[in-house]
Amino acid sequence: VFNVTWDIKAAQKDGYDHYMLKEIFEQPKVVKDTLAPRLPMDQDDIVLDNITLTKEVLEKINKIYIVACGTASYTGLVGKYLIERVARIPVVAEVASEFRYRDPIMDENTLMIVVSQSGETADTLAALRLAKQAGAHVIGIVNVVGSTISRDADDVLYTLAGPEIAVASTKAYSAQLCAMYLLSIKIAMELGKLSKDAFIELRKELYLLPEKVSQVLSQVDDIKALADKYINSKNVFYIGRGLDFAVSMEGALKLKEIAYLHAEPYAAGELKHGPIALIEDNSLLVGLTAHEELYDKTVSNIKEVKARGANVLAIALEDNKDISKIADDVIYVPRTHWMFTSLLANIPQQIFAYYISVGLGHDVDKPRNLAKSVTVE
Amino acid sequence: VFNVTWDIKAAQKDGYDHYMLKEIFEQPKVVKDTLAPRLPMDQDDIVLDNITLTKEVLEKINKIYIVACGTASYTGLVGKYLIERVARIPVVAEVASEFRYRDPIMDENTLMIVVSQSGETADTLAALRLAKQAGAHVIGIVNVVGSTISRDADDVLYTLAGPEIAVASTKAYSAQLCAMYLLSIKIAMELGKLSKDAFIELRKELYLLPEKVSQVLSQVDDIKALADKYINSKNVFYIGRGLDFAVSMEGALKLKEIAYLHAEPYAAGELKHGPIALIEDNSLLVGLTAHEELYDKTVSNIKEVKARGANVLAIALEDNKDISKIADDVIYVPRTHWMFTSLLANIPQQIFAYYISVGLGHDVDKPRNLAKSVTVE
Repeated sequence: VFNVTWDIKAAQKDGYDHYMLKEIFEQPKVVKDTLAPRLPMDQDDIVLDNITLTKEVLEKINKIYIVACGTASYTGLVGKYLIERVARIPVVAEVASEFRYRDPIMDENTLMIVVSQSGETADTLAALRLAKQAGAHVIGIVNVVGSTISRDADDVLYTLAGPEIAVASTKAYSAQLCAMYLLSIKIAMELGKLSKDAFIELRKELYLLPEKVSQVLSQVDDIKALADKYINSKNVFYIGRGLDFAVSMEGALKLKEIAYLHAEPYAAGELKHGPIALIEDNSLLVGLTAHEELYDKTVSNIKEVKARGANVLAIALEDNKDISKIADDVIYVPRTHWMFTSLLANIPQQIFAYYISVGLGHDVDKPRNLAKSVTVE
Repeated sequence: VFNVTWDIKAAQKDGYDHYMLKEIFEQPKVVKDTLAPRLPMDQDDIVLDNITLTKEVLEKINKIYIVACGTASYTGLVGKYLIERVARIPVVAEVASEFRYRDPIMDENTLMIVVSQSGETADTLAALRLAKQAGAHVIGIVNVVGSTISRDADDVLYTLAGPEIAVASTKAYSAQLCAMYLLSIKIAMELGKLSKDAFIELRKELYLLPEKVSQVLSQVDDIKALADKYINSKNVFYIGRGLDFAVSMEGALKLKEIAYLHAEPYAAGELKHGPIALIEDNSLLVGLTAHEELYDKTVSNIKEVKARGANVLAIALEDNKDISKIADDVIYVPRTHWMFTSLLANIPQQIFAYYISVGLGHDVDKPRNLAKSVTVE
C-alpha cells in the first residue's frame, strides 16, 4: 500500500516515494512491452521490427562485439554467454571506453551490438562509428527513439521501457536484457542452431516472464527487511558464476551508485585467488546461485566465505531450498529457462540497493556525482 | 641498508624482513634471467627454448585465448592488448574458473596460452585440458619446472623467477609479463608484422629493463613514506586505461591480498558510469598514467575524481611532470617502449602494498585465508 498525496511530483511518481521505486515496479509491463510485439503467436519466429540483418550476412559473421558502458555493458556479458552457447559465434563483450582506444580488429564480417538507454553515450557512439568505418554491421539496442545511436546504427532494436527518470537504471536494464534474449535466439534460429520446437518452448517461457517478475516484486517487504538488517555492512562482495557473474556486476554497481557502499563483484572461482583475504566478521556476501548448472560450484565458494565469518545473503531459484542451510538469508526467485535467469535474479538486488539507499538517507533518484546519460568522455 | 641478523630464517630472507620484500628486490635479476637467454645478441630473433609452434601453424591461428587465475590472469590483459596491436590476431583473456564452464568455442585453429606460477592451478589446468581435447595448441607460461601444466602443455615458456615463497606474487608476475612480451613479439615477427629493425629497437629496450626496474626500486624510501601517509585510507580505487588497466587490476589485488583493504580497479572511462558516486574526502585514487597514448584521457578522469575530494596518488612516466599539478603525490617510473610500461608501472604498487601491510601489522608473507597455489576449485 502506497500513500498517495496529490501534488504534481507525487502524481508523476504515481504515489511512489521515488522514481526509482516506481520504475522498479513498472518492470512487469516493460518486460511484456519489449517481448510481446516481437513474439506474435501466429508466427513461429521472432519478428524484429527494423533489423535488416539477413541469414546470408549472418552466415559470414565470424565475430560479434557487444559494446556499452556502465549498467548496459553487463547485458554484453549476458549476450556473450547466450550467443556463444546457442549460436556458436565467438563474442567479445567490452566497455566502450577501452574498446575505442585499442585499435580493435574489425571488418565486414564483424557484427557489433551497442547498448545504450539514452542512445547518446559518448564512448558507445564512438565505438559504433569505428565499427561503421571498418565496414561492420551495427545493431543498436536503444531506449530513446530518434537518439543519435538509433539514427547511426544499421539496425535498431528498441527497448520499450518508457522514460527512465532515476539516474540508476532498473527498468531500462531489464528491457535491454529482454532485447538481448530476443537477439540471441533470433541469431541462433537464423543459423539453424535452434529447432522450431526449442523456440516454441523458449517463447512459452518468455511469455511467462512478466508474471514471474511480479512474483519477485511481491517480496518487496521481505527484501526491505533484509536491507534494514544489512544496512551497516561496510564491505560487500557479490559473487556468481556464468550468467550469475553478470548479475553480480549489476548488483554491486547498483549498491555503489545509490548507497555509496564499496561493493565489489567477483567471479566466484576467483575469490580464493586473493579477495577472500578481506573477508571478516562484518563482511556481507551476496551469493548468486540462479545459474543452476553451476549451482554446486558456487555453493562451495559460499561455504568457504561463510566459514570465514561473513554474512551471506543468497539469491536462489525457488526450489533450491537447501541453500538456506548455508546462507543467513535467501531471496528466492521463480524458476525459468536457464537462458532467462539473469533477469529475475537481478530484481531483488534493485530493491535491496534501493532500501539501503533510503535507509542511509541518500538522494536515491539523483545520486551524487552521477549524470543520467554520459554524453562526454 | 638492511640489518642482517644471522639466524637461519634471516639468512633465507637475505636480511630482508619478509620474503615478499626480498622477492620484490630480486626483480632486476628475474627480469634479466627471463629475457636475456631468449634474446641472444648474435641472432636477430627471439629464441624460445621449447616452443614447437611453427610459422605454418601460426598462420592458421584465428583466435588466441589467454587463460589464468588471480594475478597471473592480468598478464592475459597485457597479452591481449599487445598481441592484438602488434600481431593482429583476436585475443580473449579470461579467468579460468569462468572459461572452463562456458563451453568455449575452440578448434585446431585456436591457440591457448595458460599462465601459472606453480603450474598446478586447478582451474587453469582444467582449461588446458579442454583446449587439448578440442585440438587447440597450448603454450604454458610456468615457473615450476616439471609441474603438471609444464608437462601437459604442448610448449612451455619458463619464467626464470626462482622459488617464490611469499603468497602474494611479485617477481613471478614480473617474469610472466616478460614472457608475454617475448611471446607477443615472437608471434608478430613470425607473421611478418614486425620488421627486423623494429625488433632490434624492442630488444634494445628489453635489455634496458633490469636497470630500469632497479631505478624504480631505488625509490623504496619515498614509496614507504607514501604508504605511511595513506595507511588509513578505507576506500581505494585504482584506475587506468589500456595497458594501465591491467596494472590497476594487479595494484588493487595486491592491496586486497596483504593489506585487507577494499581496493577496486576500474577502467578509467567507466568511473563516471557509477563508481564516482563513492568518491569522498577520505578516498584514495591511484591513477595509472604510464600508457602514454591515453595519458590525456586518464588525466581528465583523475581531475574529475580530484574535484570530488579524493586524494590522488599518480604513477607516471618520468618526464610527464605536469601530473604533479593535479595529483597529491606522484611516483615516477623510467620511460621505456610503450609495450613494456606495464612492468615498470606495477613495481611501485608492490612496494606500496607491502608497507601498508607492514604498517597495519599483518602477516605479509602469509596473508589470512590464502594459499600460495590453488590446487582445488
